[in-house]
Amino acid sequence: MASRLLTRQLACSLQHNYRLLMPGARHISQASAKVDVEFDYDGPLMKTEVPGPRSRELMKQLNIIQNAEAVHFFCNYEESRGNYLVDVDGNRMLDLYSQISSVPIGYSHPALMKLLQQPQNVNTFVNRPALGILPPGNFVEKLRESLLSVAPKGMSQIITMACGSCSNENAFKTIFMWYRNKERGHSGFSKEELETCMINQAPGCPDYSILSFMGAFHGRTLGCLATTHSKAIHKIDIPSFDWPIAPFPWLKYPLEDFVKENQQEEARCLEEVEDLIVKYRKKKKTVAGIIVEPIQSEGGDNHASDDFFWKLRDIARKHGCAFLVDEVQTGGGCTGKFWAHEHWGLDDPADLMTFSKKMMTGGFFHKEEFRPNAARYPQFISRARGRGTFCSFDTPDESIRNKLILIARNKGVVLGGCGNKSIRFRPTMVFRDHHAHLFLNIFSDILADFK
Amino acid sequence: MASRLLTRQLACSLQHNYRLLMPGARHISQASAKVDVEFDYDGPLMKTEVPGPRSRELMKQLNIIQNAEAVHFFCNYEESRGNYLVDVDGNRMLDLYSQISSVPIGYSHPALMKLLQQPQNVNTFVNRPALGILPPGNFVEKLRESLLSVAPKGMSQIITMACGSCSNENAFKTIFMWYRNKERGHSGFSKEELETCMINQAPGCPDYSILSFMGAFHGRTLGCLATTHSKAIHKIDIPSFDWPIAPFPWLKYPLEDFVKENQQEEARCLEEVEDLIVKYRKKKKTVAGIIVEPIQSEGGDNHASDDFFWKLRDIARKHGCAFLVDEVQTGGGCTGKFWAHEHWGLDDPADLMTFSKKMMTGGFFHKEEFRPNAARYPQFISRARGRGTFCSFDTPDESIRNKLILIARNKGVVLGGCGNKSIRFRPTMVFRDHHAHLFLNIFSDILADFK
Repeated sequence: MASRLLTRQLACSLQHNYRLLMPGARHISQASAKVDVEFDYDGPLMKTEVPGPRSRELMKQLNIIQNAEAVHFFCNYEESRGNYLVDVDGNRMLDLYSQISSVPIGYSHPALMKLLQQPQNVNTFVNRPALGILPPGNFVEKLRESLLSVAPKGMSQIITMACGSCSNENAFKTIFMWYRNKERGHSGFSKEELETCMINQAPGCPDYSILSFMGAFHGRTLGCLATTHSKAIHKIDIPSFDWPIAPFPWLKYPLEDFVKENQQEEARCLEEVEDLIVKYRKKKKTVAGIIVEPIQSEGGDNHASDDFFWKLRDIARKHGCAFLVDEVQTGGGCTGKFWAHEHWGLDDPADLMTFSKKMMTGGFFHKEEFRPNAARYPQFISRARGRGTFCSFDTPDESIRNKLILIARNKGVVLGGCGNKSIRFRPTMVFRDHHAHLFLNIFSDILADFK
Repeated sequence: MASRLLTRQLACSLQHNYRLLMPGARHISQASAKVDVEFDYDGPLMKTEVPGPRSRELMKQLNIIQNAEAVHFFCNYEESRGNYLVDVDGNRMLDLYSQISSVPIGYSHPALMKLLQQPQNVNTFVNRPALGILPPGNFVEKLRESLLSVAPKGMSQIITMACGSCSNENAFKTIFMWYRNKERGHSGFSKEELETCMINQAPGCPDYSILSFMGAFHGRTLGCLATTHSKAIHKIDIPSFDWPIAPFPWLKYPLEDFVKENQQEEARCLEEVEDLIVKYRKKKKTVAGIIVEPIQSEGGDNHASDDFFWKLRDIARKHGCAFLVDEVQTGGGCTGKFWAHEHWGLDDPADLMTFSKKMMTGGFFHKEEFRPNAARYPQFISRARGRGTFCSFDTPDESIRNKLILIARNKGVVLGGCGNKSIRFRPTMVFRDHHAHLFLNIFSDILADFK
């Protein structure tokens, strides 16, 4: 409601902006009724210019221990409430920026304060669980009732992260692993890959790229920064990857007066995307994925039509690239839908979607096919293949193959060989899931002990 | 005390490890007296094998929404206390791994639980301050009484981060900016740099490198990963930078029996470091910095002598590379000193030092000369130079230079020109700091308004 009002009023004030210059017409919005935000203040209350004397003094002190040039002012977060940010000089400001869009339901929200003071939640901060190896007992339940309850359509998988940059970095890694696996055709690693990756060289570290857009902001760690192109000061002096950068549409407003021009502009950008994908494949810097913000935020709040995103997704499909939507700034409801990309109205809009900020944690959702199925025992198993139960895989050589068959037999499992070094499965037609699990557990133990 | 006991006992048990095989000698350590850790348990208490049935069930559930293969078992953190980790099956284990070294003073420490429940601390999590632009009023005070109180010698500057990877990523960026500034000789940016950085190309994104060691682990974001070389599974399928990797000494134990061999081994590694610095400079991939762990942890707990680190620091000095010590895993007291690199006994051991894990936050300390002095108004000011008060800088052209001198005069400051487009300072010998500040404030305002 508030957001619709804001959008409409802004559009209106821009079309009639001369009004703003006329003193008699300064109050262009209705006086708002006090509403349901009970912990909100009545309105702004200014006591000094901002930054005030206390902020200026603190800036000097901070500047002794770190460059404080970027600081706007210092805040009194204990006194900040709802939509109002209070600074250390007692100025109370209506905050339309909310820590670069990172405060979801207002400052010092009593429900959040209460929640975070509960011992089981404090516990998480004190005990610092290493989630990947030692998650808490309620991890699945918490993921289900929080993040998974707002999972975008088609994305059943969730990875949690501590910030937006790490979310994008790890989404990139997921894309690279998925792409390489697709290219390889199986999930084993070659000796050459295992060795070259340790010294940062191909084929272990393949020369893949992520296509991004001029004006994009996806974070400031080195991987993210290679896809960020909003301000020079973020990038200058930092080594980067030679990854393709396409132009993002520069639409003319009001949209209804420039329909044709804007269509042409979007077509131009999409054409460039395809050209870059082809060009970078030829350069042996294959585009494994495309990353895009539904609305370029840091880059200038640049929008594109739904049609643009449909076609962009189609290009990703056509060229076999993953399609990653960065909702770090747009996610969490602020565009009128929970995720901004839902506005596109596509059944299958994206392969991965990153989030942070308003979500109060970081992470990404993704489709099941992007699960990193890290190969186990790649030194023993390769070229896993099959149709139905007619399956097989290769071992390193005949001697190891024969040994494995022998050990399996002594553990109660009969397997067959074929070719020089393959092991084949030919079970009966009454072979069931539990028989498969039985085999996998026994064989996994055999490989773990294999010398 | 406990750590010294552990080290001594481990050394002892290794030298006499046959004892471990003799049933009669199983209790090689004294029964310990119940001590000061009042919230500790008495000892381990095992009820099932680990992972137990409840953990196995949760693994299956988690595996539906993310790859759960890395999970060891699920934990009951509410019941975990002190040195003991309790799992969801009720098994209580003496934890000598503590979330990969991330729990500083034991599970559920009452003092930490209390501290984090205080409204002013909960507030920080709820209000998510964007520290770089809107820090809380107590930010400086908190930094002083916490992180700065344990700052390594010679490092007066502190940058906070959310995790170890981000700490290393940003330490790298600080090094690259410092190195480029040094190479440039002034703090302005050229038009070409400002333009090329936006498309990931040199000279805006210079082709600098960070030298790391084989066996190192510095994190898993793309920048960090280019310096990580501990396990193939961390790196395989992920594009990387062509950065130099030196061998880390592989010492033979017991040290006293292999003095000469170990000295030779360390000399060999140091020689390779110098060779790589020279080689990569020739390849135009100049080594801007060297990163090293005081003890390689993830890579196998690989140690080197103090002498090795002295010489490594000297090589960094000799070749003008920054020397970055990664104390993410070794920091916080676990080596017997607060920072492991303090064991080296050097007056000036490092230029930057990263931390996380036991510190319960991330970040890095650095020397003052590594402050990123992001140029202000690079479009107006370049080639800033001078000796004493005999200073000058260039403007873009004669017309702008003359305009700036004129505007300054009307604001009450007399400046002189020289050359085609330079502005020069020739103040009297009674020119003091406050005059300089007076000028800088006025001139800064002029540049901010300059059209």
